Amino acid sequence: MLLNPRLFLSSLFDAALEAARPERVVPPAIPADADLATGRVVVVGAGKASAAMARALEDHWPGDPARLSGLVLTRYGHAVPCRRIEIVEAAHPVPDAAGRDAALRLLTETVAGLAADDLVIALISGGGSALLALPAPGLTLEDKQSLTRALLGSGASIHEINCVRKHLSAIKGGRLAMACQPARVLTWLISDVPGDDPSVIASGPTLADPTTCADALAVLAKYGIEAPGAVRGLLESGAGESPKPGHPAFARGEVRLLATPQLALEAAAVAARAAGIPAHILSDAIEGESRDVARVMAALARQVADRGQPFTPPCVLLSGGETTVTVRGAGRGGRNVEFLAALALALDGHPSIHALAADTDGVDGQAEVAGAWIDPSTASRARALGHPLPEVLARNDAHSLFAALGDQVVTGPTLTNVNDFRAILIT
Amino acid sequence: MLLNPRLFLSSLFDAALEAARPERVVPPAIPADADLATGRVVVVGAGKASAAMARALEDHWPGDPARLSGLVLTRYGHAVPCRRIEIVEAAHPVPDAAGRDAALRLLTETVAGLAADDLVIALISGGGSALLALPAPGLTLEDKQSLTRALLGSGASIHEINCVRKHLSAIKGGRLAMACQPARVLTWLISDVPGDDPSVIASGPTLADPTTCADALAVLAKYGIEAPGAVRGLLESGAGESPKPGHPAFARGEVRLLATPQLALEAAAVAARAAGIPAHILSDAIEGESRDVARVMAALARQVADRGQPFTPPCVLLSGGETTVTVRGAGRGGRNVEFLAALALALDGHPSIHALAADTDGVDGQAEVAGAWIDPSTASRARALGHPLPEVLARNDAHSLFAALGDQVVTGPTLTNVNDFRAILIT
Repeated sequence: MLLNPRLFLSSLFDAALEAARPERVVPPAIPADADLATGRVVVVGAGKASAAMARALEDHWPGDPARLSGLVLTRYGHAVPCRRIEIVEAAHPVPDAAGRDAALRLLTETVAGLAADDLVIALISGGGSALLALPAPGLTLEDKQSLTRALLGSGASIHEINCVRKHLSAIKGGRLAMACQPARVLTWLISDVPGDDPSVIASGPTLADPTTCADALAVLAKYGIEAPGAVRGLLESGAGESPKPGHPAFARGEVRLLATPQLALEAAAVAARAAGIPAHILSDAIEGESRDVARVMAALARQVADRGQPFTPPCVLLSGGETTVTVRGAGRGGRNVEFLAALALALDGHPSIHALAADTDGVDGQAEVAGAWIDPSTASRARALGHPLPEVLARNDAHSLFAALGDQVVTGPTLTNVNDFRAILIT
Repeated sequence: MLLNPRLFLSSLFDAALEAARPERVVPPAIPADADLATGRVVVVGAGKASAAMARALEDHWPGDPARLSGLVLTRYGHAVPCRRIEIVEAAHPVPDAAGRDAALRLLTETVAGLAADDLVIALISGGGSALLALPAPGLTLEDKQSLTRALLGSGASIHEINCVRKHLSAIKGGRLAMACQPARVLTWLISDVPGDDPSVIASGPTLADPTTCADALAVLAKYGIEAPGAVRGLLESGAGESPKPGHPAFARGEVRLLATPQLALEAAAVAARAAGIPAHILSDAIEGESRDVARVMAALARQVADRGQPFTPPCVLLSGGETTVTVRGAGRGGRNVEFLAALALALDGHPSIHALAADTDGVDGQAEVAGAWIDPSTASRARALGHPLPEVLARNDAHSLFAALGDQVVTGPTLTNVNDFRAILIT
């Protein structure tokens, strides 16, 4: 085979990232009649991509830049300098005081006193839920921090985690839109959630929330999470209820998805075909425990390799979504590297299967590493280096493994976020 | 749509079963030179299909029937009357004294004193591992029963479970072949294990075992199973070691796979295409936690339905293998019905997706029910009947659900066993 699997798979990941870059997707969204807002134009937002979205908006804003102002939160290391819009960095995935203080300013200063002829543009992207950590009355930041840690390690899906968050917040779940009244609110999103439900992305600060306090309590019960008393009180009393569809705060709202996991996978498929390799998109929204998803993907890849079903090799299988890891060990892990460790274990050195899996935000789990790649020698090299794959999985320690192997995919913060990217090459 | 999804899916399952029926697959395997064995022809075997295999062998045996004799174990309710070969019924999946006593007779009487010109035909099929429960010296049947229960509820794969079993047995893991020496041994198998490794099917009583006592200990450690002291002693001392490839007992052995999960899926695919519906075989060997496998399959089916990727609807996605259930609740469950409950939950009433999942032996888990089917109304009907899907999954109670819905697939014992069968129809 003339193809270099590592370079090929990396080029697909690059193509996926490029398709979701704010500088690429924001300018076409700016309305020709943007200046028709006769009042102020206030830019708000939160997420790993949101500072880059703000910069792209500034750079391409067709009207008087002096009318632009605003405040956007992003993750530490994800700031992009802007001229008119203030950028604040805060912690993710466990919130901190910087996020809380900025969220408070956003709510009480940035969007305070808006008029009906003012325009709010909300730049929302994945990670915004943790960044916008303004506890509901009666809760402390510490309550939210401990609850966030418990949820992240429980195996709960992002839909479930954000359902809980929206009922414990003074800003998420549509409450930011309430504070913007009576201004018109445009919400532009880069989706990092399976299914692309705008009300789930960054816990939908400007969008009506169809979920309820009872749903949030059911999530806590499902995963056996012991919440602080103040949290239970808020949920059980219904005091944490979020504004629902039909609330007047959303009457003038408009929503636009600028980039999605599917869009990124389509771009990767085009790049693969350009290199002469047929690409098949299996799903943009795969959820489930990382190691079990890996076992299914291994079975699919083997069927292609060994029987030519349902696709003829060579080909590449693309998928996105957000898998979860139920943390059992104390290692350095992330859902994409855990997926790869389990995939390599299930493939057991199969000679014609290579794979790359990475988080499109550039950060898989707690490490500043996007992901990794595996080849037919991964399992044997892992053993030789003292990181046998069963032990790696038992300790949730896949980052240590791929660091030792020299097979990490490192991008730094990508300034976008369309969730997991997986490409499995069968030659 | 003119197609009746329920009848269509049932017809695919029927086609899969038909392709794996002993009466269909045994006769072509009988060698024209069967009579060339100048000595006795001794038929042994164990498994859910093995009595039917023995009957098919008797019915089509070309030589003098008086030279045929033997003993075959099958599960309660799976006996088929034979003229020359004795059929004994025993318990599955947790072994009982009937299986132990018959296994002892098999080893010490049926194959005792064979000569080099005698021929042994071993009819092996899924379930044989539990049926052939002859504890290694120093172990009791109770030891094996308690260990079997622990393994079955642990989430361990069949490869892992059988690795343990082979090191605690006086008959499995090649030991039956040792007792047949110096006769020639033909092993005919109907495979119910992912990957079709003959040494794993029914724990390979007539085949060399590449796994070790250390592997068995690693399985117990992985799932946190506390084994009785006698079990640990056997494994830690190496006294439970099985004969390895190269052992002279296997020098004259021949192995033939008569039916496999892949063969059954191919037959279902032919039936689907005959009905005008393209069929895609995703894998014959999917493993993983049932509910996580279901989430992946739901994502794949949605991608087909909503985006026409990677296949254009209408089509049917076929897969086999053996999922596992980590038992948490006290309900009546099985891996195929648990898969379907989780699939219906993940599909959330998607209007164009129907599915059938069933165990090809006719028994999914503890119930005499093969499986079930779901349609777009399953989730709402489940709620209306007081079986909301999240609670069904929390209690591992999917058989109760599908009984209440009237959506069970009931075949009775099929007298074959090629593992799980899943068909997802996207219209």
